[in-house]
Amino acid sequence: MTYNEDTIVSSLHSLHDLSKALNSSLDISRVEEMILHKTSKLMRSPKVLILLLNDKTKSLNIHNALGFEPSELMVHTFENIQPFDHCIVHKGSVITIDEVLSPADREIREICPQLFEMLFAPLEIQGKAYGLLGVMGRKKNFSRIDLEIFCSIGSQAAVAMENAGLYAKLHSTFLHTAEAMAEAISSRDPYTGGHTRRVRTYALQLAEKLGLNAEEKNALRLAAILHDVGKIGIDDAILRKTEQLTAEERLKMSTHPRIGARILGYVDEMKAVIPGVLHHHEWFNGSGYPDGLAGEQIPLQARIIAIADAFDALTTDRPYRRASTAVAALDILARESGVHFDPELLQIFRALQTAAQAQ
Amino acid sequence: MTYNEDTIVSSLHSLHDLSKALNSSLDISRVEEMILHKTSKLMRSPKVLILLLNDKTKSLNIHNALGFEPSELMVHTFENIQPFDHCIVHKGSVITIDEVLSPADREIREICPQLFEMLFAPLEIQGKAYGLLGVMGRKKNFSRIDLEIFCSIGSQAAVAMENAGLYAKLHSTFLHTAEAMAEAISSRDPYTGGHTRRVRTYALQLAEKLGLNAEEKNALRLAAILHDVGKIGIDDAILRKTEQLTAEERLKMSTHPRIGARILGYVDEMKAVIPGVLHHHEWFNGSGYPDGLAGEQIPLQARIIAIADAFDALTTDRPYRRASTAVAALDILARESGVHFDPELLQIFRALQTAAQAQ
Repeated sequence: MTYNEDTIVSSLHSLHDLSKALNSSLDISRVEEMILHKTSKLMRSPKVLILLLNDKTKSLNIHNALGFEPSELMVHTFENIQPFDHCIVHKGSVITIDEVLSPADREIREICPQLFEMLFAPLEIQGKAYGLLGVMGRKKNFSRIDLEIFCSIGSQAAVAMENAGLYAKLHSTFLHTAEAMAEAISSRDPYTGGHTRRVRTYALQLAEKLGLNAEEKNALRLAAILHDVGKIGIDDAILRKTEQLTAEERLKMSTHPRIGARILGYVDEMKAVIPGVLHHHEWFNGSGYPDGLAGEQIPLQARIIAIADAFDALTTDRPYRRASTAVAALDILARESGVHFDPELLQIFRALQTAAQAQ
Repeated sequence: MTYNEDTIVSSLHSLHDLSKALNSSLDISRVEEMILHKTSKLMRSPKVLILLLNDKTKSLNIHNALGFEPSELMVHTFENIQPFDHCIVHKGSVITIDEVLSPADREIREICPQLFEMLFAPLEIQGKAYGLLGVMGRKKNFSRIDLEIFCSIGSQAAVAMENAGLYAKLHSTFLHTAEAMAEAISSRDPYTGGHTRRVRTYALQLAEKLGLNAEEKNALRLAAILHDVGKIGIDDAILRKTEQLTAEERLKMSTHPRIGARILGYVDEMKAVIPGVLHHHEWFNGSGYPDGLAGEQIPLQARIIAIADAFDALTTDRPYRRASTAVAALDILARESGVHFDPELLQIFRALQTAAQAQ
């Protein structure tokens, strides 16, 4: 069989598009979405599956899928995957379901007969298989070129998923480390309270509702985690005092947003995070600190964190008072609407928390 | 012109290999190395160039190259790159040097005539060009398929470089943030001293000399940055005391490695970092804390950090004494060889610092 130049150029083009698409993001869910859709298109198959190997249980689990009815995905775990494993590791190329299942795998054959029209390509990184990419194939209807392309999809999908996974892991290490350190700083006692984590959660709930984009949410998340980092510069005596602070002590305490902004100022990539840290003690009526900003002069990040911070403070035990209930805390915040807090944001937050309480 | 199946399968295979190779690492220098070598092989060209656009100066600079003589790379900046820019942005495909250079670009033609046998493919991300990939081409000797493959290489190279760049940026944000926070914690005063940064530098110099692998160096780097994070749990009164500590105060002070390990214990991904943090105050003769480990029972990370930490403490001003010179500090450390410090490591460190002083 021979092909003209156009056919080849078009195949090369498809593969080029594929690789560009699969690697164009380090966001794991976008990468998987892309894998499913591109595979479906290039293999002219409406049904695509990503199966991942669970190293501990040695089973293959359906991780993501396109075009299947829920009922078809009922069997979502494949035990006894030695035959899969064998084929993946030793052949390293496309295999059909018939090659994969041993005659003993009756159960799967019976429950899910349509699987028998599937092709699988290994997802492997540096010779180690960690899953399979499957398409519903028109059996015996694939050319050598189709199989070559499918194998290429599998191998590129594996690489793209691996990269996105590495990025996600680094990101989570970063956030968790910042959170553990921030928590230790804000409480001067390692990780007892979880205040940092809760403020971050409340802030992101608001951000979700406001429809902030991914970049804005990332910056807000970090600002929420790091908002009290400047407390490192406040003396123990003030920080741990359970009675009311004197005017002088309050003045010292009120330097913490500037100290926090200064610490983060040493990190170039933290520019987007500083507004929330520097201004989370501004009041909506202009009577807060450090700059006495009012209304929408106060960065959105800071207005969100102010609400999240106050709500968490009210709903947790402090040395000098017991926690309020969520309902009582929302009432207390409401009295400060337009005074301390942004009224619009507060209304949205109230609705969110009321709904959460009702569940 | 027609081709048989084998030719096509082999082209597809090359492209598949390429994409797998280019994306198989998020380490920018490995990615670039791979781009240069794979391009050279696939395009059958011994000379390959990566040119990057400097957005501010609007010039193209030679960023990396394979197979060129140093003299050929003398002209390493191309000013006046509007014609490049034009071609890249508006054509988005392979261009020859003749299309790129305006007739006025005499200077480049004269200085570097061999450039005229080059082909360029744009490096672009989401429609924005940030550079060119160039190969020394046998003019008019490339088939349409070659051009298609070259274009694909360019586009995949761009994506791989972008991903590696994003990963590197996140990694540096993480390290810088950890460093800024650690510095603030260890000095209870935001980023005055740079102790954290210097300990990290000394520790990594030792690691380099010892031939630790990338993973070990990463863990050591973080442990060096975070070694004193547990000081967050020590009272101001003890931390800031300029006179000798009492026995009771020393006891409290000596809890900081455990507190640090506990803080990092909340971060799953930090397991590899804890040994350095927990044991950086162990002594080689077993008389240190918290566990009184001796000799090689003390994790390597911790033995390295102990030397780096002590050397930096001696060579910087403290409230209660002036800095020693590097030479004097090395003598002081030498007296503690086998007592406080690992003799072998100390000898290597001494040689490193002596060499650094001699420069």
